[in-house]
Amino acid sequence: MELFRRSHRNVGLPPGTLPSPEAIPPGSVQVGYLQYDPEQVREGSSLDECLPEKGERPVCWINIDGLNDIALLDRLIQRLRVHPLVLEDIVHTHQRPKLEDYDDYLYIVVRMLDYDENQNELTAEQMSLVLGPNYVVSIQEFPGDFFDPVRGRIRLGKGRSRASGPDYLAYMLIDTVVDHYFGVLEKIGETIEDLEDRLLEHADPAQLHEIQILKRQMIVLRRAVWPLREVIAAMERADSKLIRRETSVFLRDVYDHTVQAIEAIESFRDVLSGLQDLYLSSVSNRLNQVMKVLTIIATIFIPLTFLAGVYGMNFRWMPELSWKWGYPVIWGVFLVVAIGMVIWFRRKKWI
Amino acid sequence: MELFRRSHRNVGLPPGTLPSPEAIPPGSVQVGYLQYDPEQVREGSSLDECLPEKGERPVCWINIDGLNDIALLDRLIQRLRVHPLVLEDIVHTHQRPKLEDYDDYLYIVVRMLDYDENQNELTAEQMSLVLGPNYVVSIQEFPGDFFDPVRGRIRLGKGRSRASGPDYLAYMLIDTVVDHYFGVLEKIGETIEDLEDRLLEHADPAQLHEIQILKRQMIVLRRAVWPLREVIAAMERADSKLIRRETSVFLRDVYDHTVQAIEAIESFRDVLSGLQDLYLSSVSNRLNQVMKVLTIIATIFIPLTFLAGVYGMNFRWMPELSWKWGYPVIWGVFLVVAIGMVIWFRRKKWI
Amino acid sequence: MELFRRSHRNVGLPPGTLPSPEAIPPGSVQVGYLQYDPEQVREGSSLDECLPEKGERPVCWINIDGLNDIALLDRLIQRLRVHPLVLEDIVHTHQRPKLEDYDDYLYIVVRMLDYDENQNELTAEQMSLVLGPNYVVSIQEFPGDFFDPVRGRIRLGKGRSRASGPDYLAYMLIDTVVDHYFGVLEKIGETIEDLEDRLLEHADPAQLHEIQILKRQMIVLRRAVWPLREVIAAMERADSKLIRRETSVFLRDVYDHTVQAIEAIESFRDVLSGLQDLYLSSVSNRLNQVMKVLTIIATIFIPLTFLAGVYGMNFRWMPELSWKWGYPVIWGVFLVVAIGMVIWFRRKKWI
Amino acid sequence: MELFRRSHRNVGLPPGTLPSPEAIPPGSVQVGYLQYDPEQVREGSSLDECLPEKGERPVCWINIDGLNDIALLDRLIQRLRVHPLVLEDIVHTHQRPKLEDYDDYLYIVVRMLDYDENQNELTAEQMSLVLGPNYVVSIQEFPGDFFDPVRGRIRLGKGRSRASGPDYLAYMLIDTVVDHYFGVLEKIGETIEDLEDRLLEHADPAQLHEIQILKRQMIVLRRAVWPLREVIAAMERADSKLIRRETSVFLRDVYDHTVQAIEAIESFRDVLSGLQDLYLSSVSNRLNQVMKVLTIIATIFIPLTFLAGVYGMNFRWMPELSWKWGYPVIWGVFLVVAIGMVIWFRRKKWI
Amino acid sequence: MELFRRSHRNVGLPPGTLPSPEAIPPGSVQVGYLQYDPEQVREGSSLDECLPEKGERPVCWINIDGLNDIALLDRLIQRLRVHPLVLEDIVHTHQRPKLEDYDDYLYIVVRMLDYDENQNELTAEQMSLVLGPNYVVSIQEFPGDFFDPVRGRIRLGKGRSRASGPDYLAYMLIDTVVDHYFGVLEKIGETIEDLEDRLLEHADPAQLHEIQILKRQMIVLRRAVWPLREVIAAMERADSKLIRRETSVFLRDVYDHTVQAIEAIESFRDVLSGLQDLYLSSVSNRLNQVMKVLTIIATIFIPLTFLAGVYGMNFRWMPELSWKWGYPVIWGVFLVVAIGMVIWFRRKKWI
Repeated sequence: MELFRRSHRNVGLPPGTLPSPEAIPPGSVQVGYLQYDPEQVREGSSLDECLPEKGERPVCWINIDGLNDIALLDRLIQRLRVHPLVLEDIVHTHQRPKLEDYDDYLYIVVRMLDYDENQNELTAEQMSLVLGPNYVVSIQEFPGDFFDPVRGRIRLGKGRSRASGPDYLAYMLIDTVVDHYFGVLEKIGETIEDLEDRLLEHADPAQLHEIQILKRQMIVLRRAVWPLREVIAAMERADSKLIRRETSVFLRDVYDHTVQAIEAIESFRDVLSGLQDLYLSSVSNRLNQVMKVLTIIATIFIPLTFLAGVYGMNFRWMPELSWKWGYPVIWGVFLVVAIGMVIWFRRKKWI
Repeated sequence: MELFRRSHRNVGLPPGTLPSPEAIPPGSVQVGYLQYDPEQVREGSSLDECLPEKGERPVCWINIDGLNDIALLDRLIQRLRVHPLVLEDIVHTHQRPKLEDYDDYLYIVVRMLDYDENQNELTAEQMSLVLGPNYVVSIQEFPGDFFDPVRGRIRLGKGRSRASGPDYLAYMLIDTVVDHYFGVLEKIGETIEDLEDRLLEHADPAQLHEIQILKRQMIVLRRAVWPLREVIAAMERADSKLIRRETSVFLRDVYDHTVQAIEAIESFRDVLSGLQDLYLSSVSNRLNQVMKVLTIIATIFIPLTFLAGVYGMNFRWMPELSWKWGYPVIWGVFLVVAIGMVIWFRRKKWI
Repeated sequence: MELFRRSHRNVGLPPGTLPSPEAIPPGSVQVGYLQYDPEQVREGSSLDECLPEKGERPVCWINIDGLNDIALLDRLIQRLRVHPLVLEDIVHTHQRPKLEDYDDYLYIVVRMLDYDENQNELTAEQMSLVLGPNYVVSIQEFPGDFFDPVRGRIRLGKGRSRASGPDYLAYMLIDTVVDHYFGVLEKIGETIEDLEDRLLEHADPAQLHEIQILKRQMIVLRRAVWPLREVIAAMERADSKLIRRETSVFLRDVYDHTVQAIEAIESFRDVLSGLQDLYLSSVSNRLNQVMKVLTIIATIFIPLTFLAGVYGMNFRWMPELSWKWGYPVIWGVFLVVAIGMVIWFRRKKWI
Repeated sequence: MELFRRSHRNVGLPPGTLPSPEAIPPGSVQVGYLQYDPEQVREGSSLDECLPEKGERPVCWINIDGLNDIALLDRLIQRLRVHPLVLEDIVHTHQRPKLEDYDDYLYIVVRMLDYDENQNELTAEQMSLVLGPNYVVSIQEFPGDFFDPVRGRIRLGKGRSRASGPDYLAYMLIDTVVDHYFGVLEKIGETIEDLEDRLLEHADPAQLHEIQILKRQMIVLRRAVWPLREVIAAMERADSKLIRRETSVFLRDVYDHTVQAIEAIESFRDVLSGLQDLYLSSVSNRLNQVMKVLTIIATIFIPLTFLAGVYGMNFRWMPELSWKWGYPVIWGVFLVVAIGMVIWFRRKKWI
Repeated sequence: MELFRRSHRNVGLPPGTLPSPEAIPPGSVQVGYLQYDPEQVREGSSLDECLPEKGERPVCWINIDGLNDIALLDRLIQRLRVHPLVLEDIVHTHQRPKLEDYDDYLYIVVRMLDYDENQNELTAEQMSLVLGPNYVVSIQEFPGDFFDPVRGRIRLGKGRSRASGPDYLAYMLIDTVVDHYFGVLEKIGETIEDLEDRLLEHADPAQLHEIQILKRQMIVLRRAVWPLREVIAAMERADSKLIRRETSVFLRDVYDHTVQAIEAIESFRDVLSGLQDLYLSSVSNRLNQVMKVLTIIATIFIPLTFLAGVYGMNFRWMPELSWKWGYPVIWGVFLVVAIGMVIWFRRKKWI
């Protein structure tokens, strides 16, 4: 995992400077809009057809996947009369989740997370939302999203989805993102449980590295979820006229989900610390086992070897050597010493 | 213990979506009501008989054990004009304890805990309370509860139980749940003491795992009790007209109990950390003992074995071998070396 | 130390329920009163003589040692028109220190601590204070207290003791309790210093257990002192008309003492952690010493033993064996190898 | 790294005392000014030409590199009617970042950081800003800065740079400093990643020292960035009339960057703790390997050596010795014992 | 270091009780005053000459070194109409730094620290300040202070020293005390750096004890500096009419210095933790070295000794023994085994 990436323009450039085209990773840009009011839905991919007109209706949701077409973003931003610093934040991904209130529109940054179960890799993507009086612009870093259920609900016009304003649309998008966190948490939870099972069976140095990687994923998760809680709380407090009162109760619901995600993250951190303790203790326990075996073997045989050495000496006058029963007696002594040692170890609970 | 379970609808579903019938674990649903005013009590199991009419009296307590009959819950919720998000929270268990004020009614979530002494397992169950002007609906996850004493008090009409409003009933239910926490804490306290006794007698790697499990139970307890404190504090502050002033003093009492439970949990965490330290030190202490024995045996016999080896050499000219007293003298040397070593170890306080 | 004791009525009992007489540990109850105004003092043990009459004077201090005579407590409480929950808190000891303001009277719980130097045991006792307009009721768990100096001061009528109201009396009692904490802290400080001296001289596994016990005593101390600070701060803020302005400056003084006690406790915790580090390091240091001796003995003699073994072989053709100087030469080799090893160890700073 | 340097005048000197000329490290002082309004730019190095006249325009930016010429600083400070304590803080470097509001001017301290990749050394330099109604004075500790891009933008008069007031200039300077933090963080991030790679390959005691050094660099970074966040927040809150409302949105942008820097620092700290754990575990893992090899070799050969010793004894009557197959049989026994041991170790998963 | 000393009167004594003369450590008391207005200065040692008259001028600074002459203190306190609790706090040293506002005067406690470089001992002394409308009384625990520069400034009448009121004098005294903290911090910093150098060269168990002692000195420092910050902040907020507005800016300066001292202390704590880690790792690293040498020597020679033992057996039929090249061949085998082992160790990077 790369530890740190610059998240804004290079040193010394004036505010509002965009990265040069080469600095942006290549990839295609997908643009689409969805314009709806309670009666009808229009879809298309040409932004000009979906001009955010005056008034509250119809609501226009413009979704852009990919940041490569800066000219397009620039045109859009200028048409919506959005501050240039916003565009800078959109294209310099790795922002912290935040809510900026520009009176006429809100600029919201959230982080979309995904977890690759095969690689055990956590990927993060920045989504920028611009929420205006009759439009929502959602800009994602990479093509492909998980907003199809939201699109489906709008097309079908079920529930409040089409009857409510752009604030409810923004809620639905954020709610989808937060829901996805739970999927990520479930998968990480499974990874942790699997790691725990393997660790309890046989501790192995690679597992400590796995624990470290999981701990860093917790850092990434925290950095996505903790500030999001503040963002949603600020939206719920309805400081802005762009958030209708009836949306508050839904925001409180997402807020609860964010708090649950935070609690899960904190529990995972505790569990990971516990696993690290278990690992260390399991390793040191194995060392103890090894040492015990060495000690038992050595303390039994070292005295015996000494005795054998004694009767291997070549002194002329060693009466034991010429006794008839000398050899069987010495074997008896060997056995007595060895068995005595074993009994002593038993008493000490070492065997 | 499963580390994490999703506590709300699946990704992308609109707010208020209920789980499909198959997703709900099978089990029977028990429904009952208790309608009372200072003069009389009526009981039954048909909800239609206990329509919450206008006015403050009589108070109706509807208790539902089990979440399988969603149609029933839905009907009840609609009759009470409760927000659909509440029903969603009721059926998606694993909510955090919380208080939501919908002006006309309060929605309260608390977690009921139980501890199985044989399995040393902590089980948690979600109880939802809807507190209206003249009714309380309590919905539990599983059949079987510990509210019989409350029912008994209402039937007998002793004390304030029947003279007070639904807020006092809600207080009695929460108080019973919190009282139960103390039972759980007592049992866990005994488990910890028992573990400590065993640990001081003989440390054993399985104990570290037990400590880890107890630590996780502390996480579960904290997640049940910490937010509950906030819930009760919010009720006590009487932000809502549904909580009468005279109930406040009782809520303050439960609040105190919650704080005591929190303190007990925090102490247990400290004690568990202490046990872990004791375990690790006890294990390393045993390793030291083992090492000492090895060292003492080895350092006594290694030089002796060398000496025996020397006189086992076959050099033609080795005058000692032909001395008459050579053999007894070498035994004397053996003894002197061995006793010298033992005295030296004694001085070093190793024996 | 018992880890956890239930501090209130059993599950499911209505609020205000008192424990059954059998649940209360046996022991005699001592009752006494002291009624005073600036001119005179009356003492006795019959509560009926010391009826708190209307008005501010005379002040009546009723002291009860022991909780066994519930009927007596009940009668007293009813006469003073005190809320039944207060009596419940009085008899269910193990309350947290707290201040409850019932407008007409204040209910204060403090914990009296004592330290048995021989057993190194910390004992805690609950004292309840009911402070009314012209009375103070102090109820202690066990007979025997340390309030004789306060009684003496009142009898002699020195200083403000008799000229001030019941709030000053409550201050004097709390001040005496807090003063006693310092005695406890001094004794624990001596225990810690003694432990440290023993630890620096010779580390021993029992010491780790002592450290754990001291750490738990710190938990008990914290639970007595931290909330007391809040209690005194609340009294000092003079939220209640029962606390006169001129008593504030004295309460600020006790408040300072409480803060000092808290600082001492926190320092002790730090020192105890340091001792634990010292212990662990001292033990591992001794292991290192043992290992070094083993290594030095073994690495010196193992090669020598090998050499002796070589010349103990029975090959027919081994020219060294028949050399005249073979035996002295091999002893020279033994010495050279041994001395070389010793020099090498010296260089490595192992000896 | 020197742990602590005095950051203000010596003991007992009156406030406003400046260090004696010898106390200041020698080095040349570079002075320059840049006076601009939307129409034109003037540059020079004589401060007298750039007298900050009344009114808001033109804006004068005076930059001084080096603190040696105290007379010059003194003259400047007196001309701008700045409090003598400000000059004291300017020349006593090692101030904490802070904002002091003297109504007519703001005094801001920020710390400029640089990282030498070859030496892995973090250097810090104090920059003082005095922001008045129509001037900015920036005073740096050492010659050489990274403000050339700012100068370039003013000379070209692009964007707001020349149209805005001195508060925007102060913003540009602080923004440049904060941007530079990201460069430092990137380099430290690379150092950490490189260290991690080396550690995973082969742990080595010097690495622990490297980790300690990096941890101290984190302390230096934190001390530079944490208080800066407060400084910028205070500027953004626009407590002073010297900060125009339109500059706020830019300050919020730098604020975000500071928060990102803080998060990066905190993550680095976590990662460094993780590396330390990895190091310790890696070292203890290697010890385990060593112990295992020793144990395996010793436990295989110690019994064999004993057996060889037995048949090296010189007892007269040892029937095995005269058996024809005695020697091959004993080799068979050797092999059986050795192979048995190996199989046993395999089962225990030690090999 | 004594861990805990009682800092107030004994249990049960009424508030305002002073220690009996024997309880106070013997030592002479030095009294002196300095009375000044912008025109003149008077000095002397008889307190009666320096009666604080009505009005703001002249300012009288009374300094008392030593607490033995309680009669004198008592007389002074009564003349200034100071509350008896203040005198109690003055003579019971070991107060926490604090500010008490008695409307007519402020009572300030600060702790003066000194560091003995030879003994590496930190000594603390309590200074009490009573700040009235036209006087400052400073009472120190022991004779000898570091206020001569302040006296010098007043005598010379330089700067504001004589033109300002008693609040500026109190500022100068506190500033001098805080300046002295930096001297202490510098010396401790040097001690830590010296310890670190020694530790990196050769770790030694006594160093861990040194680290523990330094950690406790950090506790003493924190207890002196943290609350002082609050004291100065309270003075700066100018809650009292005794602190003039123009003194605020100077107090802000001392406040900054206090914050710097706190930051230095916190860094030292981090550095000390790092040193402890280094020590432990260095010790365990040395153990690893020792183990490696043992293992290498043992694993090389144990198999060789076994082989030598084999050919020391006395079996009648051992064909190798009678081969002519048997002896050289076995030496060859010895060499091959030994060199093979060494190569294997090299590959494993153990040598």
